This record gives sequence, structure tokens and C-alpha cells, in this order.
Amino acid sequence: MRILFTNDDGIHAPGIRALWQAFAGQGDLIAVAPDEERSATGHGITVHKPLRVESLKQYEGEVQAWSVNGTPADCIKLAFEAILTEPPDLVISGINRGPNLATDVLYSGTVSAAVESVIYGVPAIAISMAGHDSLDYQWAAKTCCFITQQLLADTVEPHTLLNINVPVCSHELIKGIRVTRLGQRRYRNILEKRIDPRGKSYYWIAGEVEDVVAGEGTDIAAVADSYISVTPLHFDLTDEPKITDVAAWLQKQ
Amino acid sequence: MRILFTNDDGIHAPGIRALWQAFAGQGDLIAVAPDEERSATGHGITVHKPLRVESLKQYEGEVQAWSVNGTPADCIKLAFEAILTEPPDLVISGINRGPNLATDVLYSGTVSAAVESVIYGVPAIAISMAGHDSLDYQWAAKTCCFITQQLLADTVEPHTLLNINVPVCSHELIKGIRVTRLGQRRYRNILEKRIDPRGKSYYWIAGEVEDVVAGEGTDIAAVADSYISVTPLHFDLTDEPKITDVAAWLQKQ
Amino acid sequence: MRILFTNDDGIHAPGIRALWQAFAGQGDLIAVAPDEERSATGHGITVHKPLRVESLKQYEGEVQAWSVNGTPADCIKLAFEAILTEPPDLVISGINRGPNLATDVLYSGTVSAAVESVIYGVPAIAISMAGHDSLDYQWAAKTCCFITQQLLADTVEPHTLLNINVPVCSHELIKGIRVTRLGQRRYRNILEKRIDPRGKSYYWIAGEVEDVVAGEGTDIAAVADSYISVTPLHFDLTDEPKITDVAAWLQKQ
Amino acid sequence: MRILFTNDDGIHAPGIRALWQAFAGQGDLIAVAPDEERSATGHGITVHKPLRVESLKQYEGEVQAWSVNGTPADCIKLAFEAILTEPPDLVISGINRGPNLATDVLYSGTVSAAVESVIYGVPAIAISMAGHDSLDYQWAAKTCCFITQQLLADTVEPHTLLNINVPVCSHELIKGIRVTRLGQRRYRNILEKRIDPRGKSYYWIAGEVEDVVAGEGTDIAAVADSYISVTPLHFDLTDEPKITDVAAWLQKQ
Repeated sequence: MRILFTNDDGIHAPGIRALWQAFAGQGDLIAVAPDEERSATGHGITVHKPLRVESLKQYEGEVQAWSVNGTPADCIKLAFEAILTEPPDLVISGINRGPNLATDVLYSGTVSAAVESVIYGVPAIAISMAGHDSLDYQWAAKTCCFITQQLLADTVEPHTLLNINVPVCSHELIKGIRVTRLGQRRYRNILEKRIDPRGKSYYWIAGEVEDVVAGEGTDIAAVADSYISVTPLHFDLTDEPKITDVAAWLQKQ
Repeated sequence: MRILFTNDDGIHAPGIRALWQAFAGQGDLIAVAPDEERSATGHGITVHKPLRVESLKQYEGEVQAWSVNGTPADCIKLAFEAILTEPPDLVISGINRGPNLATDVLYSGTVSAAVESVIYGVPAIAISMAGHDSLDYQWAAKTCCFITQQLLADTVEPHTLLNINVPVCSHELIKGIRVTRLGQRRYRNILEKRIDPRGKSYYWIAGEVEDVVAGEGTDIAAVADSYISVTPLHFDLTDEPKITDVAAWLQKQ
Repeated sequence: MRILFTNDDGIHAPGIRALWQAFAGQGDLIAVAPDEERSATGHGITVHKPLRVESLKQYEGEVQAWSVNGTPADCIKLAFEAILTEPPDLVISGINRGPNLATDVLYSGTVSAAVESVIYGVPAIAISMAGHDSLDYQWAAKTCCFITQQLLADTVEPHTLLNINVPVCSHELIKGIRVTRLGQRRYRNILEKRIDPRGKSYYWIAGEVEDVVAGEGTDIAAVADSYISVTPLHFDLTDEPKITDVAAWLQKQ
Repeated sequence: MRILFTNDDGIHAPGIRALWQAFAGQGDLIAVAPDEERSATGHGITVHKPLRVESLKQYEGEVQAWSVNGTPADCIKLAFEAILTEPPDLVISGINRGPNLATDVLYSGTVSAAVESVIYGVPAIAISMAGHDSLDYQWAAKTCCFITQQLLADTVEPHTLLNINVPVCSHELIKGIRVTRLGQRRYRNILEKRIDPRGKSYYWIAGEVEDVVAGEGTDIAAVADSYISVTPLHFDLTDEPKITDVAAWLQKQ
């Protein structure tokens, strides 16, 4: 089996390293990831400037690794089209430092890399720590291994895309795995305005989470209740039920 | 009515200007857009460095305009949270130079700005020229005006999000409007490798379009057949039908 | 006569526009300048990514203008090597928003563009407003015109490089022109530490000026005394008097 | 003794590591360097966006190390003003991958960091490999150690600034050390124009060296003749001999 790892925290981040260590011995391991942190890049790709790829010798043995001066989606494109001689069997993106829950998956470089892989017809897993403190990447990586094995035991459809969030409580307290749908989340007081020493204003994006849809069955609820959340995703943004309504409006002319 | 315009080609691009000119006299017109071209930024937001906002006096009269050194999604956040005293009634993002069809909406800054608006509960329209040559922005802007009026004639749900692509043939040849679903598209031969004068290699992302799903009812087919394509979008990436399958796999343990 | 204008405040800044307006009718006027503000870039050049050049139609008539996504030194290289069919007779860089006095010329993109020109064998003038408020660019541009005529009345050596700073007091109060040497200046309390909304620290470079050498004959003194300061510069950083000392130390081995 | 190391190839480059290894046991060793390659940045400083400083644990023992998302000159400012509790006794910048000879010192981030240090009143050494292949950083670092000891054996003036270039031939062939002046160098055919896959042109800065002044006594000649070149530098760009000429021109009015 050939597994391709990527992330948006950068090739030197502890999350991706925990992954390739946990998968040691399970096939060809390849990592193609950004040269530095590129979180919140969404599904951006780099079309107006050139990309650089660098082979990283220090990881050989464990994994064949490359760094790219681009986004996670760029990394997948480069891996599939320029670095690898044949496509991988699976792409795993993460382990992200911090959650990728609910509406926030739209901003997530981690999830976008997984989406990009599925566009190429290769199943993918995005995995994130659902908090910022006490991150036990090793344990989360083992969980990812286990879920992967379950996934690969059956015939996997090429469009399979799972978004996993692992609670950051002590792992004895984790109650199990729940298959969920995305909740909905937005942010309040999101911009902080400051004045620089030259008297010009600037803004930081920040804000407190407001969970708009977080009820039973959502990824937000699962994680809050100490379950590992596994959400199957697709990448078709069509709002099927609205097609008829819109057609009706437009025919009124 | 208060309309907020944005785009990903930059505040000085002809597409956004055509929009605010077409909507002149129809309410308060505000533009908050990137200071320079930020296409293919996907739904990226800027969290690791500060954002700057600049008021642009030269457009006053026509529109109140601000430029932001960030992505289209940043522009919407800044508009809603820092620049505007009350939210707009509608957001229009575009007119983009080039198509935003099928799977490519995932990479689109234009569409992401519209999605961001809908997350805030304000209906939004993304509009793009479905080609790169002979772009008649004025005519496309008038079409956008017309569709907007149809849309606002009824009570509009706050989550309404329309993705419009306008064919670039001579407008007498345009046959009408079709309400569509997203097709599926990928790219072949996507990376072009070159060597810089210092002997280091670099890559350009390019590639030829391969329409994987482009049949009847898709946006790709509508545009190819000289129809204006209107696709209702949502932003819930949950793959509902797969929830049962994934739960079944995981219970086999 | 062919005059090439550049700056580090960007091609759309008022200072460079005042220059080409003041020189109207005095020959072929060309402007090649950064697409946005690039101050404090020092003598940086762009070698690891490609440069883009864009022809700006809106200034035609007044001046032939190009914008470059690079530093002021990049602009000079592009002008001499790619844009112009023959070299200019003179390069004028500015009018900078803010002073370029004393040690600060080392950080100055404005001065670096002038140095780059002299390396190519073309005489150059860097001109700056010696303050940040009440900037009368038109008057400063006329002064630049006058000094240029004096300079060109004689045979000018190709390595001639003048650094001009214009006081920002009302111009009736300006007492005349002084030819000066560079003073020496450093900054105190130069860094301002702040914490971003994610709890990570960052720094702004700021600081209060401390004039270490500002006595008679310096550019600092001239400007403080309401004189226009004109400092002839060269670009040879060799410390000639020290050559003997260093040789002596090394022979002690 | 407290020695501060910096460079423009980035904190992880082999040249800076060779330096701190060669100076092991000779005092407090501190490194503050850019987080990634920033060559050819000249004397740029970062004033329009904030700087980040990160402490690097992996080098502790050998050296206390920090990385900065800024230029070499930014690193010196941060080290002196924010990171260090008291100033160092000496700053060493390098070992640069590639030469910093002649006029090219103006573009050099390596040399600019040394200049910045001298502005603060601390003597500094910039050291570079005078070629791009077969780089024996260990040997060059030992040479730097030796020169430093000679320098510190006497009372060193705080404005002492040495620019060292080490030939890249096998070190048995190196004939000794020469104290030199800067030669003069420019580049021919400097820009390479290409077309990107979207049909837009771009340029790479490259070019062949043309040594305009390379005679006896210059750094260029020393290195070509297999000598280590040591050039004392200063940072006063005033062209003293021209002061009288320029005053004469201006009085003709």
C-alpha cells in the first residue's frame, strides 16, 4: 500500500510526523507538505507564481519527504502530477493542531488537501486534534491507523472522504467513535482593531466561537461529549432542493 | 437596499466596476475588495498576519469603496464586522474574469466570498464570465441586475447563494438562463516544470480541462450551449448518504 | 533628454507624479516603479521568484509608465535591461514620503534605486520630503528641476549621485541649498512587543530618532535649519584608512 | 565573550551551524537568523508588518537560537533590542553560500546584518564562500575563528567591520590572507524573459558577471588568486571629494 501524507502545519510539524511513525511498516510512506505553516488557506492553489519542491533527506528511512512553497492543495497536485510515479492508494492529511469542525472545514487547508485527493479519485482522510492544548498526537495517530484499517477492509469507493476530529481529553476518557454530520459555527467579535507605531490601523481576525447548529448527530456535539467524530464529506456544493425554487423565480419574468 | 460588492480580481478590476455602475440608483452601494488580484485563493482567511483597510476616495459618488490586503473571505469579514455599521441586504461577488464552473468553485475566491456572506445570513450571488476573451462586463452586469430583481421580488431565504456563469459569445447568441447543478472537472498535464537561471527547478500550475461530469443539467453543459448558468449552492459538505455506510464499517470492529 | 523616474512608494504615489508633471516638456519621460509601497527595502533585489512588468496606459501623454512587482533596485534593472531600448540620461528617484537622512540612507529603497543607476553608469538623484506632514510635492519637484538643470549645465560624471532632502516647512521659510555630508542616526526603544489574539507575540519596528552625529555640515543639521540638503554619495563601502590597521593585526600571527 | 551569529541563508543553513560549532567553548553563543532564505534582501527592514520571533529548542547546548520572519537587519535589531539582555561583544554574519564581493555587497543581506551591528557600536564580521560548489564550511569557520582571535587580541574599535570571502578551492591551495578594497562588478544579460502557461510574461534576474574594477588590491583579485580576502568596510556613503564640486555647480545660479 502507498500512503501519501500531507498537512497545513508544515512538513516539520509534530502531527504529520506522528502519522508516519504510526504507519511505519504498513507500506510505502510518502510525505509532501508545505515548507511552513499554511493554515486557514482554504482550498487555495498557487497559479500566479511558481512552486518549488525540495527533497528532504533527513526523514529518509521513516518516509520519503518533500516540502513545497505552496498550499496543501498545491502539495496534492504536485505529488500526483510531478513527484510520484504512480498515485497513492490513500491520502491522509494532518494531524492538524486544532479542530476542523462544522463550517470551519471550508477554511481548512487540512480538509482541502483531502478534497483535492478525492477529486483525483483517491480516498482521503483529514484528521485534527479537537483542541489546542495537551495534544497527544501519538494516540490520535494510532486511532487514525485503526480507522484506516476498518476503511480498507472493505472495498473503498474512490470518492470516500472522512473528516476526523479527536477530543483532547485524556484518552482513557474518550468514549468511542461517532459518525456525524457537520454542525454550523460562526464567530462573534471577530476583528480586533489596533494602531501600529506609525499611526496606521490594522486588524487581527480572532473571535469567539458561536455554535449555531450543534445538536445531536453533529461533529461539534460528538467532540463535546468526548467521542471521536468521523464525518463523511463530499465536494459537491450544489443545493439540489433549491434548483426548483430558483427555476420558478426566474420563470416569473 | 444596501448591496455589498466584492471580488477576487481586486478593487480596480473592470468586473466589479461594471457591477456598481449597473446597480447605480438602486440603493446604497458599497465595495470592499482585495487591493490586488487574489484569484484561486479558495476560502482562505488571514489569521497569522494583520489586515489593512484603506478607504478609496476616487470612487465616491459611484460607490463607497475600501481595499483590503487580504482574501475575498477576509473582505467579507471586515465589511460585516468592522467597516459597515449594519449588514447589507445582498452581497454580489464578481464579475470574475474567467469561469467558476463545476469542481473549480472550490478554488474560487469569488464563490468563497459569497459563501462567507451566507454564513453571516445574508444572501449572495457570485458571477463570472465563462471565458477569458471578448468579455462584455456591462452586459453581464445588466443580467446580474435582472436576476437580482427576480430574486428579491419574492421573500429570499437568508441562505440563498447563486453561482452565475455568463457565456462570452456575442450576447445576441445567448439563448436564456438555465438553473443547473455543478458538473465535475479536473485537469490534465497540470504542472509545467522549468529550470530557473540558477539551475533550480520550479513548477507552474496550468493544465487542460477534462470535464468528467458535464452532461445535461450541469453548469458546464449550460454554458457550452450558450445559456447563462445559475447554480444554487450550499456550504454543507456532509455526505449524508455515506453516514450509514461509515457507521457500518466502524461497527465491524 | 531621457529621464527615468522611480521610487519606493509605488507608481501611484503623489511624489513620483509631481516629478513627471514638473519635468513635462523637458524630454522623454519614463517611469518604472513598484506596483505598491516597498519602502525600507534597502538595496534588495528579487532573485528567487520571477518579476512581472505591467504597462500602465492611464499615464500616457504625461509619461510612459510601467509597474513592477519588485523592489526599486529591481525596477532599475528591468528598465535598463528589458523595458528601455536605450539607457536614460538621468534617473530621478522619489519624491519620497519622509526623510532619507544620515545612516537611514542604507535602508532606503529610494536611494538604492539611485545607486543602482550609478552602477550602470547613469547619474542619479534621490529626492525626499524631510518630514511626514504638510508635504508640498509640487514645490519640491520644481526644486528638483532646478538642481537638475544646474547639474546638467556642466559635463556630469556618470557616477554622480545626489541625495536631496527638502524641509517640509512652508517654502517661503526655506533658506536655500546646502551641500552636506551624511550625519549619523540611530533609533531608541525601537521595538514594540504586542500579543496577538491567539496569544502569540509579535513586534513592530518603530523607535525614536537619536541623532548621534548631527553637527555642522551634516544633512541633519541643514534640514533642521530649513535648508535643502544635497549630499553627494558614492557606493564604495571600503574603509580605506583601516586597510593598513587590519593588515598589521593579521601579520602579528 | 558573547558572540551573536546571523546570516541570510536562514537559521537551518549549514554555514551558520559550522560557525557556532567552530566557536564552541569560546563564550556565550547566540544565533538570531531568518526563518528561511532571505538572500539579496540588501539592507531591508520590515516596517509595514509585524515580526515574529521563535525560540528553537533543538540547538540548545550548542547555541541559543531564535528564528525571525524578517531580514538579516531585522534579526540584528530584534537581537539587540528585544532578545538579548545585554549587547554581544561581536557579531558574525554568515557563512554565506556564495560570494559577497565588490559592488555586490550592496545587495547582500549577510553584509547588511554586519553593518547594522556596527551602527549599534558592536564590531562585526561578514563571511562568505567565494563560490557555489565544494563548500568546506568547517574550514572556513576555523579561518573565521583565527581572524577573530587576531582581531580581538588588540583593542577593537567599535566600528570595525570586516568582509571576508574564502576561496572554494581545496584548502591546501589557499595561499594566505590579503587585506583588500572592494572591486567593482556588474552583470550583463541580466534578465531572462519567459512566458507563463497563462500567456503572461515574467522575468528572472540572472546574468553573467562583468568585473569592471578587479585589479591589484581588490577583493576580486585576491579570491581569484586563491587568497582569503578581508576587506574593512564602513557605512558612510558620503562622497567627500564631490562636496566641493557640487557646491560650485549650485553657486553658479
